Amino acid sequence: MKTVVLKFGGTSVGSIERIKKVCKIIYSYKSKKNNVVVISSAMSGVTNDLVKKSKLLSNNFNKAEYDALLATGEQTSCALIAGRLNHIGLKSRSWQSWQIPIITEGPHSSARINQVIVKELKKYLKDGGTPIITGFQGINNRFRLTTIGRSGSDATAIMLAKFIKADECIIYTDVDGVYTTDPRQHKKAKKIKKIFYDEMLEMASLGSKVMQPSSVQDAKLNNIDIKVKSSFISKPGTLITGSTKTFSNQIITGISSTKNDAKITIVGVKDKPGIAASIFKPLSKNLINVDMVVQNISLNGKETDMTFTIKSDDLKKTEKLIKQNKKISYKKLSFDKDVSKVSIIGVGMITTPGITYRMFQALALKKINILVISTSEIKISVLISAKHVKKAVSVLHKEFKLD
Amino acid sequence: MKTVVLKFGGTSVGSIERIKKVCKIIYSYKSKKNNVVVISSAMSGVTNDLVKKSKLLSNNFNKAEYDALLATGEQTSCALIAGRLNHIGLKSRSWQSWQIPIITEGPHSSARINQVIVKELKKYLKDGGTPIITGFQGINNRFRLTTIGRSGSDATAIMLAKFIKADECIIYTDVDGVYTTDPRQHKKAKKIKKIFYDEMLEMASLGSKVMQPSSVQDAKLNNIDIKVKSSFISKPGTLITGSTKTFSNQIITGISSTKNDAKITIVGVKDKPGIAASIFKPLSKNLINVDMVVQNISLNGKETDMTFTIKSDDLKKTEKLIKQNKKISYKKLSFDKDVSKVSIIGVGMITTPGITYRMFQALALKKINILVISTSEIKISVLISAKHVKKAVSVLHKEFKLD
Repeated sequence: MKTVVLKFGGTSVGSIERIKKVCKIIYSYKSKKNNVVVISSAMSGVTNDLVKKSKLLSNNFNKAEYDALLATGEQTSCALIAGRLNHIGLKSRSWQSWQIPIITEGPHSSARINQVIVKELKKYLKDGGTPIITGFQGINNRFRLTTIGRSGSDATAIMLAKFIKADECIIYTDVDGVYTTDPRQHKKAKKIKKIFYDEMLEMASLGSKVMQPSSVQDAKLNNIDIKVKSSFISKPGTLITGSTKTFSNQIITGISSTKNDAKITIVGVKDKPGIAASIFKPLSKNLINVDMVVQNISLNGKETDMTFTIKSDDLKKTEKLIKQNKKISYKKLSFDKDVSKVSIIGVGMITTPGITYRMFQALALKKINILVISTSEIKISVLISAKHVKKAVSVLHKEFKLD
Repeated sequence: MKTVVLKFGGTSVGSIERIKKVCKIIYSYKSKKNNVVVISSAMSGVTNDLVKKSKLLSNNFNKAEYDALLATGEQTSCALIAGRLNHIGLKSRSWQSWQIPIITEGPHSSARINQVIVKELKKYLKDGGTPIITGFQGINNRFRLTTIGRSGSDATAIMLAKFIKADECIIYTDVDGVYTTDPRQHKKAKKIKKIFYDEMLEMASLGSKVMQPSSVQDAKLNNIDIKVKSSFISKPGTLITGSTKTFSNQIITGISSTKNDAKITIVGVKDKPGIAASIFKPLSKNLINVDMVVQNISLNGKETDMTFTIKSDDLKKTEKLIKQNKKISYKKLSFDKDVSKVSIIGVGMITTPGITYRMFQALALKKINILVISTSEIKISVLISAKHVKKAVSVLHKEFKLD
């Protein structure tokens, strides 16, 4: 008998009608003699509403209470699903994280699942029951409710799959899989049948909203194959895996692009050991995420130019922090608000030379100027003017035969 | 140092602004050096919305899941209150029933609180914390969430007061106390300063919505004095107590009236042992609540008339059940849909003769016909035509010097 973990996201359980549909999906797995373990998110909109309420009561809402507050969202959806499953003839019950328990460590609102005690769950599965488990939350060693960050229900599903030794982990969401690039922006985007963890990690980090990077990382670390499917339409989804068995010879798996990036260049910084740390320490302290960093070669051995990118929203704060920073001296600051990062991703590039050249050449032929370049083993990112993003993704999609 | 239990009902925490107001009330108790234990209901409307969702998914929603579903309402309001209290500088945290724990017995949706383990709570109070506890719920011996019936937050407050040995238990609600009769209907209604448990029990059973009978019963059994106050306006409320020390010589404490009653008379029933049981058994099985019952003296020793009252909503079902009942034979059924029960309540009537006469006389002078009479030691109820209710309450309010 196979054990299947099914995870449903917020839009998948976003209304009474959606919950009925989800229960039909669960029923179909159960009727195929599977052990079925369900993880659910809160109904879409519910978590945002709770966050809004907390903000109206405090601009610095107590973190532990914030977690206790948000946890109610999944508790509601799980009880509704279990109630409906009983109605259509399945033995089912909701399990809150303290009832299992799912034990987390780390700070409130960004805890991580440490352990899942599956003894009772296994007994319940053996008795033919279908457990509906609250995603996104757990308890810490002081018996307080914790949450594991937005989209944390994916992490719950992956950890449940690990601890219960599931055969399959299926993430049901509102898209039907992972695409070569954003299908809402590019008509030629195609669904990817299989993708490696590392590729998916890069895709997720670079703006693909299908899965959070940390969840993909969890899956990779625990070697759990994940299927991403739509709960709205019945279609094969995307398999995220580490197994290389049946992969094609595709070099590039997908193309990502970001929005709302900004570029800062500090011109004529005094070049001395530790200068980068001096620049970035106050930004890090203020939770400003620095993405691409380029330091030009110091020609005269005394001064250098430091270029880096951040989210546009952080631009004003960053400017202020640099101007206040007494540990650095420089000639001037220059800014560019309208830039975007376009990345090509694929494990195939490790063994295929010339990918960088092909990428740059394709962009050059379309007269797209590259501002910054950053590479990893399976990814090449370029920073370009935001107005060229659509054209850049199209030409690269074609260049690497994803059309 | 005094320990005070404060309970806030759904309308008292019904909005963000109301929660801020409630937190000010809590703060004022805490600043007077009290230990403060708070019990909260769900924000008004929330529980009804959850019930509605459950009904849309099943006309017979699984009882355990129903409890898990409804329990989220108080979990939300308690987290919001605790978050706000921290914001205004009070050390506070929410406690869900499983965290304390509050242990219940009995079936889902109508469980009763059996025990509250107050060890951790006491430690927290000693450390200066203000615990915000979810009303209306507990866990059973299988670690499932249970609820203790609508308005069950009052019961939670009373049991907490009992187990933590509180000096005071204050129920904050949307009315500012218990009145001699319904103040929305009768302008001369006056707020009662002190009322005995037994009187309050009768008032509650007879339609006063301030407190549920079972909660008053809990207070009586555990000898917990309760104050009912408004969270909307700062006014002295009503004390519900068993202590006779400072009571006045008031004979009648309050007057209640019901709505939507119906009277049924089964004319010419064959009078034999067990006939009443034969009539009422099928009604009881169908959860139809029979209130007043009168059986006329059987003149010929063979036949009798049986009159009883039920809620108007149950009339059709009751008629059907009587007609289907093969264990009884009778001449005819007669119905009266437009009747109401008016009751006078007061422990003073135990020691004061002539109350019944005064009541009947006062009604007779206003030409109000009495259809059925029923009495207990501290209550006299009469069934009258619904159109006379307002007049009857007025004349009795005056007769017994409540004006």
